[in-house]
Amino acid sequence: MRNLLVTIRFIGTNYAGSQIQKNAPTITGELGLALREILGARPDIKGVSRTDAGVHAEQYCFSFKTENPIPADGLLMALNALLPDDIGVISCKEVPETFHARYDCKAKQYTYRFLMSRLRDPFLEPFVCRYAGSLNVAAMADAAALFVGTHDFSAFRAAGSDTKGSVRTVLSADVKEREGLIEYTVKGTGFLYNMVRIMAGTLLEIGAGRRDAATITKALKSGKREDAGPTAPPKGLSLTGIFYE
Amino acid sequence: MRNLLVTIRFIGTNYAGSQIQKNAPTITGELGLALREILGARPDIKGVSRTDAGVHAEQYCFSFKTENPIPADGLLMALNALLPDDIGVISCKEVPETFHARYDCKAKQYTYRFLMSRLRDPFLEPFVCRYAGSLNVAAMADAAALFVGTHDFSAFRAAGSDTKGSVRTVLSADVKEREGLIEYTVKGTGFLYNMVRIMAGTLLEIGAGRRDAATITKALKSGKREDAGPTAPPKGLSLTGIFYE
Repeated sequence: MRNLLVTIRFIGTNYAGSQIQKNAPTITGELGLALREILGARPDIKGVSRTDAGVHAEQYCFSFKTENPIPADGLLMALNALLPDDIGVISCKEVPETFHARYDCKAKQYTYRFLMSRLRDPFLEPFVCRYAGSLNVAAMADAAALFVGTHDFSAFRAAGSDTKGSVRTVLSADVKEREGLIEYTVKGTGFLYNMVRIMAGTLLEIGAGRRDAATITKALKSGKREDAGPTAPPKGLSLTGIFYE
Repeated sequence: MRNLLVTIRFIGTNYAGSQIQKNAPTITGELGLALREILGARPDIKGVSRTDAGVHAEQYCFSFKTENPIPADGLLMALNALLPDDIGVISCKEVPETFHARYDCKAKQYTYRFLMSRLRDPFLEPFVCRYAGSLNVAAMADAAALFVGTHDFSAFRAAGSDTKGSVRTVLSADVKEREGLIEYTVKGTGFLYNMVRIMAGTLLEIGAGRRDAATITKALKSGKREDAGPTAPPKGLSLTGIFYE
């Protein structure tokens, strides 16, 4: 049995997330349709993570098994030809049969983008959360640093989500600004449901001066969802790095 | 009578160009609908230039006259609220009654983008002409420099177009590359129909090694359309600068 690892990029705007759903276009749904066309049967697609509706990916990986002898490069070109324009395949390679795109992922990196502008920029609008005022970038950067380390992130997961365990390790968390575009980039070994969007929403409140960094320390300690900020909208979020080995 | 100058940005993918048309969405058509909603009547919209179907604009200007007393900033916000997401208003200001967005424009700058990649990048694809091979950027830059100056650009205009006169002045023409993205940026006092796309198509042939720079010298001299290269596709083209005064 062959095992293939495929890396893609996608604009999430028109999709109801990565996980397959009935009656809504999803990334895995599109991949399944294209792979069925190429392989003759829809394989079991193991995605590196579940992304929400409207979230983008500059790097997203999935693996699947097949006995079809199609060369990896031929599969890459065929997939690119069949997939819609907002999904693009970057690479496709053979991996050991035991490899699993999700379980073998050692770390993931997400970037959340804010644009300080009261005006819509059509080129950026689908990829940013726009804020019609000035944000304190230094305060956001200082606050983001508090996420680094191994913490119980209960306060930073969607209320009602029931993942086992809420302790996660954040490896790095930076905030940078260029020409009004603020990027919060966070790398970690794993993330809870909505964790990056709640972190981003909390940083936005801090940047806007409605909260201070102590809110993060308090929320990490209390574990209460209401101690953290609101969930930032999905369109500002992009999965920007997948790390294996 | 008030005269207003409005600067916008737009993604041209879903439009049949800037000029109003029956039965097809156009930039001027959308502007007219929004302005009619705000002012009560559709004003006569003077656009800085005619852009083709699928061409983008990082900067595009138009002027119109009205007796409506709405403040310029109120108009800006109202336009942004009414226009579709792929058109965004940057500024709106009062100008002298004699000002005309097209006739008072001293120079325009266009950028044509090529991406050296056999793979589709969903984030760049709508804005580039993709080339599945390696292009000689230095050769393209040397060739582009030959466009600078005042020349008869007959060979670089769409066959059959009947604009009066074909002498135009190109002020600068540069080719730069970064991470496989090649940008041809040309600034001039005026351009013939399809001129930038034919220049770009000719540079692509030179970059691919199918022609050399002498092709440009020859075409400028002969004035024959067939001596220049093909017309590059519209999606790689963007109006990137408008200069007044």
